[in-house]
Amino acid sequence: MNQIKPSPATERFAPMSFARRTGQSDMSKVRVHISTSLDGYVAGPNQSMENPLGEGGEGLHDWVVPLKAWREPSGMEGGEENASSPVVTEEHANVGAEIMGRGKFGPPGRGPWGDDAWRGWWGEDPPFHKPVFVLTHHEREPLTLSDTTFTFVTDGIEAALDLAREGAGDKDVFIGGGAKTINQYLAAGLVDELELHVVPVVLGGGARLFEGVGSVKLELLRTVEAPGVTHLKYRVVK
Amino acid sequence: MNQIKPSPATERFAPMSFARRTGQSDMSKVRVHISTSLDGYVAGPNQSMENPLGEGGEGLHDWVVPLKAWREPSGMEGGEENASSPVVTEEHANVGAEIMGRGKFGPPGRGPWGDDAWRGWWGEDPPFHKPVFVLTHHEREPLTLSDTTFTFVTDGIEAALDLAREGAGDKDVFIGGGAKTINQYLAAGLVDELELHVVPVVLGGGARLFEGVGSVKLELLRTVEAPGVTHLKYRVVK
Repeated sequence: MNQIKPSPATERFAPMSFARRTGQSDMSKVRVHISTSLDGYVAGPNQSMENPLGEGGEGLHDWVVPLKAWREPSGMEGGEENASSPVVTEEHANVGAEIMGRGKFGPPGRGPWGDDAWRGWWGEDPPFHKPVFVLTHHEREPLTLSDTTFTFVTDGIEAALDLAREGAGDKDVFIGGGAKTINQYLAAGLVDELELHVVPVVLGGGARLFEGVGSVKLELLRTVEAPGVTHLKYRVVK
Repeated sequence: MNQIKPSPATERFAPMSFARRTGQSDMSKVRVHISTSLDGYVAGPNQSMENPLGEGGEGLHDWVVPLKAWREPSGMEGGEENASSPVVTEEHANVGAEIMGRGKFGPPGRGPWGDDAWRGWWGEDPPFHKPVFVLTHHEREPLTLSDTTFTFVTDGIEAALDLAREGAGDKDVFIGGGAKTINQYLAAGLVDELELHVVPVVLGGGARLFEGVGSVKLELLRTVEAPGVTHLKYRVVK
């Protein structure tokens, strides 16, 4: 019996494999996964110490907080499983380093660090368990809390990415937000994959994704419909 | 043999039927279906006679223009079928009247109608085939072109909706855009269903959906992933 081998043409026009559709490959990638309101805000207006995600911003994460896949890395027991579970597991998998803005690290007032320096929102055992690079205008020595080391980078997004890639080894680099940080990396063409967790609320103001990023073309990799959220995963076309 | 009848509890917790999930019912509804960029614009910046959908705005409709389901009502032959086809067919089905803003009817300069009055973008046989109510600040006699009559309404969105409901009989009323018109109806709590055709482009400016609508809560009815677009259909929670 003859074996049918795909011709080059067949290969070229073959439907995308699951790995291709979900963006999986062996190459290290720069990834963004973020919850957004229908009107494009990833945090509500008037962020403060009491309300770090802004007014209404907490509601952007109502879909993820009850999930086992989210609670486990944060050291919490129990939790639900639903259609979002594999999405969250995939998001956390193979991440070797995170980059975040000063806004995400805090405190909301920003400015120089001072003597009694802020140690982040996450207590003495932060849920990252990997190197974290914090973009800031103010120099500071690295801060190690449990198995997470925060390194403060004052010479820009590309320098932070170089350090994060080095820290991540052959794993991916996660751009953890907030909006301004993600927008800078998008504008610079440095993001490979972008997943929006679209929550059906309208915030009316706050930190807006895609603001000032210029022309960005994306290609949908997959959609997952889940309770209280729709996950839209894109590849950035370069 | 005993017949098993669902108990009230079973009925209450039964999974949503397909009709429920897709929002179908016998009641007349006010519906919005609109293509939007990832950054929430339904038209690009600098709308003009030459560029009625603004810079980059045409790209929001690349997914629909090749479809048979879109070409047929516009009197064009041929066309493709794909996962978007049933979505477009459903969007057009059971619509008895349309409401549009002066911006959609045109011309872009707006203002008083003048002697040689503008007759819309669509030639002598517009693709509506139903009563259309145009929101405007400037009075004008109704305009009938083929089987479409445009009625110009100067006393606000609720008056236009009353007329449209009357014109639609027991069918639905379609709010055809642009963004300002849709936003006014959303802000007034007058929309029952909202479908976003999310196109993976970033426009960076233009006519923004959800601007100034206040707090709107939505519930996802269904998601459809299709070439070049993702369809997210919501029910407005009142």
